[in-house]
Amino acid sequence: MRAVESAQEAVACCAPLAAATLSDDEAEATAAVFRALGDPARVRIVNVLVTSADPVCVCHLIEPLGLSQPTVSHHMKKLLDAGLVEREQRGKWAYYSIHPAAADKLTAVTDLRGACC
Amino acid sequence: MRAVESAQEAVACCAPLAAATLSDDEAEATAAVFRALGDPARVRIVNVLVTSADPVCVCHLIEPLGLSQPTVSHHMKKLLDAGLVEREQRGKWAYYSIHPAAADKLTAVTDLRGACC
Repeated sequence: MRAVESAQEAVACCAPLAAATLSDDEAEATAAVFRALGDPARVRIVNVLVTSADPVCVCHLIEPLGLSQPTVSHHMKKLLDAGLVEREQRGKWAYYSIHPAAADKLTAVTDLRGACC
Repeated sequence: MRAVESAQEAVACCAPLAAATLSDDEAEATAAVFRALGDPARVRIVNVLVTSADPVCVCHLIEPLGLSQPTVSHHMKKLLDAGLVEREQRGKWAYYSIHPAAADKLTAVTDLRGACC
């Protein structure tokens, strides 16, 4: 539940780069979305999730990324807080998938033409 | 000249989040584009440039952003290196505008549907 809540919060408060007005809070929220993807390991994780048909167990991300479990969990938390991924607990392991609103959110924040919002 | 060269280099080497394969260099280059926008001051600067019809003097960014000139110049260098802005020297001052390829680059790297490249 927490994951979904934080995702919705992030969706609500960020603004496109072409917004007519941009408050300090909106600038920070928009920067936070970009910051979440400003790390090569998180780009790789999103790439794995985007190209997977099913939710991916965190246990299956450790080896391909060559990172420890705590490091992968740290990256997943950043992506979760930015509202880009969803988390589902299945017994011992967490499974992740791209948040259904992530594509629209990225399209919105990167809008340079003022066409979207 | 240097600005244009670094922009072209960045365009050439980053990859969309939905890329079928993603090398370490591509993941880093893609993360670098996001990192350049992962700061509220740089989100504000891009917002000012996007919503301006003409190139903007760096001297006109200092007061609205409430930052010192060296800090603004630091942010401009990050945006320049990421290929998101263009720089033109006019006498004493540098003028900045959004790089013509920036919108396409942002659309490309944030593509989660694999439709673009």
